[in-house]
Amino acid sequence: MRQFVVLGHDAPTTPEFSLDDLPGTGRLDVLCRCVTAAFVLSHAIREDVRAWLVLADEFTVRFEGSELRHLQPDERSTAALVREALERRGEAIGHEAVESTPGISLSRRGFEAVLEAIAGEEAGGGAVEAGTILALQEDATPVIEREPPADPAFVLADHREFTARERRLLAEHADARVRLGPEALHADHAIAVAHNWLDTGGFARY
Amino acid sequence: MRQFVVLGHDAPTTPEFSLDDLPGTGRLDVLCRCVTAAFVLSHAIREDVRAWLVLADEFTVRFEGSELRHLQPDERSTAALVREALERRGEAIGHEAVESTPGISLSRRGFEAVLEAIAGEEAGGGAVEAGTILALQEDATPVIEREPPADPAFVLADHREFTARERRLLAEHADARVRLGPEALHADHAIAVAHNWLDTGGFARY
Repeated sequence: MRQFVVLGHDAPTTPEFSLDDLPGTGRLDVLCRCVTAAFVLSHAIREDVRAWLVLADEFTVRFEGSELRHLQPDERSTAALVREALERRGEAIGHEAVESTPGISLSRRGFEAVLEAIAGEEAGGGAVEAGTILALQEDATPVIEREPPADPAFVLADHREFTARERRLLAEHADARVRLGPEALHADHAIAVAHNWLDTGGFARY
Repeated sequence: MRQFVVLGHDAPTTPEFSLDDLPGTGRLDVLCRCVTAAFVLSHAIREDVRAWLVLADEFTVRFEGSELRHLQPDERSTAALVREALERRGEAIGHEAVESTPGISLSRRGFEAVLEAIAGEEAGGGAVEAGTILALQEDATPVIEREPPADPAFVLADHREFTARERRLLAEHADARVRLGPEALHADHAIAVAHNWLDTGGFARY
């Protein structure tokens, strides 16, 4: 399975926002494009993908490719799905997730709890299979210097850099820090390139 | 210079559309994400890029990276720029382009006229420097089998395949047909991967 964790530093944590101004809603446009990049192919959904949008380190919306039903590629409809998830915030207690639409659930988790879930370290019934955590950072190792792992979990920041605390958490939990090229890409474009790296077995099989 | 030509088969050719339903406006959401993928980096615009959105083979909106001023990454604001361009459609006579906002102009050109302009074959003062035309197609040669050209011009289709006529025009004008991997990607994700191929000199320099 491929996983993508996107940190929405300024993202909304309540559903009171307008779909007409996603950039002004904590740059929700970036997060929505990340979801699209994580899942959509020309004529299919990538089923073996999980994406986590971490909203202001307080809530996380999780998308399960194998269960998704209503995902469309455009920003506005994806933002509507995030808003539907946030409408259930009162029901998200502890790390228990509440499903809002098929394949989309909300839980009260910050970045650290998501990392622990991906690393398989989470206590209780919420643990998922362990992934190889790859932090995407500009000053890191070129991605071509490694073999693509079987179960990669990429961690990306939205329009803002990782904070000092996030870098500390990554230093503790990430298996490697990688970069995808010489340019600093938007997170959704980085996801598209990461998928291509994996699809081609490290730019080898076409 | 890098160029991207995106064929919007069902795209609007008049400005009477709502920004609230871009998927229902001839999949304008796809075209807008393509513009974002063509130009935006994390903290900059790619200046040495030109993008052409061919609208229903009737009008073309051209974006010049070196002159762009008001481009934001989200779909809605890009769609508003396309709409502003279409508001000038009465002034677009022959192949003469009319600038609607800095770096964005509209002309009455279909796909063939755009190909001729890129190939440097256009008669009169509208010719631009010749680019190496690369058609992105699923059954084509893996992109890693060629060196990145100095001035590539990628041709991509929106959510629909190339038509028989478009394939004939590409057979006549394109220098090569390439594919970026084993999966059929959305056009904007293909642009992100194509940029990465060029940025890294063919997945070699990081």
